Amino acid sequence: MTGENKLTYLPLGGAGEIGMNMYLYGYGPVGDQRFILVDCGVTFPEMEGTPGVDLIMADPAFIAERADRLEAIIITHAHEDHVGALGMLWPRLQAPVIARPFTALIARNKLERAGLNPDIVREAPVWPKSVAVGPFTVGFVPVAHSIPECSALVIDTPAGRIFHSADLKLDRTPLVGEPFDEEMFAEIGRQGVKALTCDSTNVFSLHPGRSEADIVPAINALMREAKGLVVATTFASNIARLRTLAQAAHDNGRSVVVMGRAMNTMIQAGFAAKVLPGFPPITDPREAENIPRDHLFILATGSQGERRAAIAQLASQSYMGFRLKPGDTVLFSSKTIPGNEVSVGRILNQLAEQDVTVIEADDRYHVSGHANRPDLERVHQLLKPQNLIPMHGEYRHLRAHAELGRAGGIPSVIASNGAVVDLTGAQAQVIDNVETGRVYLDGTQMIGAMDGIVRTRIHMALRGHVVVSVMLEEDGTLSDSPWVEVAGLADALPKGRGASLTRSLEQEIEAALEKAGRGALRNDETVEKLVEKTVRHVANDLVGKKPVVTTLINRFEEG
Amino acid sequence: MTGENKLTYLPLGGAGEIGMNMYLYGYGPVGDQRFILVDCGVTFPEMEGTPGVDLIMADPAFIAERADRLEAIIITHAHEDHVGALGMLWPRLQAPVIARPFTALIARNKLERAGLNPDIVREAPVWPKSVAVGPFTVGFVPVAHSIPECSALVIDTPAGRIFHSADLKLDRTPLVGEPFDEEMFAEIGRQGVKALTCDSTNVFSLHPGRSEADIVPAINALMREAKGLVVATTFASNIARLRTLAQAAHDNGRSVVVMGRAMNTMIQAGFAAKVLPGFPPITDPREAENIPRDHLFILATGSQGERRAAIAQLASQSYMGFRLKPGDTVLFSSKTIPGNEVSVGRILNQLAEQDVTVIEADDRYHVSGHANRPDLERVHQLLKPQNLIPMHGEYRHLRAHAELGRAGGIPSVIASNGAVVDLTGAQAQVIDNVETGRVYLDGTQMIGAMDGIVRTRIHMALRGHVVVSVMLEEDGTLSDSPWVEVAGLADALPKGRGASLTRSLEQEIEAALEKAGRGALRNDETVEKLVEKTVRHVANDLVGKKPVVTTLINRFEEG
Repeated sequence: MTGENKLTYLPLGGAGEIGMNMYLYGYGPVGDQRFILVDCGVTFPEMEGTPGVDLIMADPAFIAERADRLEAIIITHAHEDHVGALGMLWPRLQAPVIARPFTALIARNKLERAGLNPDIVREAPVWPKSVAVGPFTVGFVPVAHSIPECSALVIDTPAGRIFHSADLKLDRTPLVGEPFDEEMFAEIGRQGVKALTCDSTNVFSLHPGRSEADIVPAINALMREAKGLVVATTFASNIARLRTLAQAAHDNGRSVVVMGRAMNTMIQAGFAAKVLPGFPPITDPREAENIPRDHLFILATGSQGERRAAIAQLASQSYMGFRLKPGDTVLFSSKTIPGNEVSVGRILNQLAEQDVTVIEADDRYHVSGHANRPDLERVHQLLKPQNLIPMHGEYRHLRAHAELGRAGGIPSVIASNGAVVDLTGAQAQVIDNVETGRVYLDGTQMIGAMDGIVRTRIHMALRGHVVVSVMLEEDGTLSDSPWVEVAGLADALPKGRGASLTRSLEQEIEAALEKAGRGALRNDETVEKLVEKTVRHVANDLVGKKPVVTTLINRFEEG
Repeated sequence: MTGENKLTYLPLGGAGEIGMNMYLYGYGPVGDQRFILVDCGVTFPEMEGTPGVDLIMADPAFIAERADRLEAIIITHAHEDHVGALGMLWPRLQAPVIARPFTALIARNKLERAGLNPDIVREAPVWPKSVAVGPFTVGFVPVAHSIPECSALVIDTPAGRIFHSADLKLDRTPLVGEPFDEEMFAEIGRQGVKALTCDSTNVFSLHPGRSEADIVPAINALMREAKGLVVATTFASNIARLRTLAQAAHDNGRSVVVMGRAMNTMIQAGFAAKVLPGFPPITDPREAENIPRDHLFILATGSQGERRAAIAQLASQSYMGFRLKPGDTVLFSSKTIPGNEVSVGRILNQLAEQDVTVIEADDRYHVSGHANRPDLERVHQLLKPQNLIPMHGEYRHLRAHAELGRAGGIPSVIASNGAVVDLTGAQAQVIDNVETGRVYLDGTQMIGAMDGIVRTRIHMALRGHVVVSVMLEEDGTLSDSPWVEVAGLADALPKGRGASLTRSLEQEIEAALEKAGRGALRNDETVEKLVEKTVRHVANDLVGKKPVVTTLINRFEEG
């Protein structure tokens, strides 16, 4: 392969949704580019579109097919939407993983749990040091977020510098992780940035972002004034918040208990990587029984209403021997992600029934980990990029962020998943669109979003499932009456409409098969189509539903 | 039956959720009370808990079993969550329906569509006139909400007066419907109110409610300044908002087009009942083609993201020949109900992709139709009830409203669905709990929430469905190998784990049946249990799922 070297950006996940971040940078002659993949995250399923699915991730097919040219997988930070898919997708990528030490520790956990070799993970130094990977030189720029060692990336190439923001906020007192260093950003900007690929999640938040330190006084007051037990829930991976909450509890004479596996894992990783200096001691739940309730604080998983998490179990009954009592306080120190309101609402009502005081997701007790609109403008001003490519957000976020960039005089390109952006010349432009998609972890299996498997599940949930057993002889003679079982449909019919749905279906299928005649019934496909058509027609007529139909054809030799 | 006359309140729906309002008042000796039912509403399904269901309503079993003692069904206003279940549940209630004229018109529509006689609906006069129904005298007190002729009820009984708030807000300039009449409330209060049953939905909104008139200037500005077509969506039944939007469009030189059946129905009913004086003329969509886009305004259904509604179709393609263009404006003049965020988000992103300017549910363009916390306090102060029983809200709303009442010195009782509250004495108290529940319209069938039908659908959606056909002779001999079909599960297995899930299941079921022996296989139930156990075990082992299992057993006579 020959030809002009091209520098390209291709989002495979995260540009068109919030979550499942996966961005590909390429450099070299078209058809022979070398690549680095930035982040390998998951997003979470919901009943509406992905019932029964365990995790959702970007389909890595484009880079998996070119894995021999993948120089490295760079992980910006240890949140699930940036690192959660690593164990599942690494076998198709087979490239070294590079991250700062705390992130590397979490990345190694992911690989180990998937039965892979964790030694593939290399630790990166911090900017202004950098790592050479093929034609790329990658610097890990410390940024404030809500987890230790979050890093933006300076990606230097022969065609110029890209600044990849990762998730960031302009927090000068983040309590956990490095503060926003305006001068470092300005210096990088002065060196010249060809393209800024930038977090867009909070572009609709119009006020400047607040610091993690801003919520400490309110949380302190709550810990001090609450009469009984205080329980707080937030994302397990929001380590900054875990520390803020635990510290406030400790400072107000409360012992800190942690409930939920994900939170314990995160905190232990923080201790191991020495990124949680001053985190108060943690009390074993078994010892906590002997501590008066007003001297106790529980950090619990489940802020998004997950049914099996600690807070859901505390709300409905008990967890590890603990029960809530009237007068206890539960704080949701988190934002409810769209789609989870009903699940969270269920828990809020259960807590109300137990006369527990609930403090809902509320600005007094929560700040976002992402840059708001004025903060994004400041980032633009400091880095002075030649081009802005909004990243990480739904389409409407990308669009609004591009408008913001243009308003500030920066040429901006909207690139959602699959858009190949050429960054070689002065002006970034979309030059191609490649196929992208989603893959699911479903139980222990990886399946494709377009396989039809989940679609069948959704259809069964909406319409019910009718199973028909047909017994035929080889020559097409019916050897017995068809037999029907219904699942997820009412079998009883209103008066005057027939004995039952099952019985009506059996009669109508038998009639249809008999009418079709032996010739037609020799062919299985014809039988299946006829059965399906009959079932849908009859069920729609009798109960107003067009169910999913499965036909089992038993063929017997003539007896 | 003899004994002391009791005055009771029993919520059958709406107390423990928002929606499906249905409240029962009783007077007379226990076991022989006469009843009035207030409201007969629906709530809407969601994929999480009620996939495939069309409508959800309160189970009327308690009053249906006592229908001979039901004096009347009173409808407070024409919103779906107050009147939507009338056509489906009336056959089990068979009582006269009483409502003010506009509400009566909608109630008649509901009965007619269900094939019932609309003449059962009687029109009520307005307070201070009243209607005698058995031992109750019911006055319809005009209140402001977001629909014409909304009415609180003064329910006078030999044991005292109940004030049933219905949905209300303290709006002195509601634009549609009667303004809040503080003096009327005060006068009713001076006459003595034993119990106030009161709307609780907005108890967590801490600021005083704003008037419909407050949003007119912003909507006028939007209509004036928008360069292209303006489309607005809101609830079809928010007639106040329909009028506000249409009027502002008209005042700014835009012709008004209405898209969506529900909205057209509501507006036509408003015209028929003469409750929409001054509503601007409506332009036929076919004529609108010839009007310049900047002189056009479309009112569209679908503010909650409903897939088939007008705004969803406009966002994804076209509707009635109309397509959106870059520069058009879409206004969501509504609040997104929890659970609908993902569906609404999908539409917002589709609109962003078409470069349409979207104005999301926003305080500038939307006010609630319910009383906020300070407004509720004002209602308490004006009516001075001896007892407060919070109504219409989730448990947490009822609890917070009761706390608010107590803080104002009013004894308050939390009564969620099924709680029988005795209002005979000075102090209201819960004296019994009766069974309540939900019934579903599913296709054209009514089914019970606890029938297991929807549960099976949810399980199939989460776990998939395995169908097994087993052929046995009467004596328990396997006459053929079992046959398996999977629906909603991946059939292919990872390398080294077997040919396919189907094939592995067939082999293991056959082995299990053979091991069980002929004696055991004579019994269908034993076979079913064994098949189910085997399928769950094998599927969990191979793919990490425990599917729903349906077994079809074919028994043959020995050949």
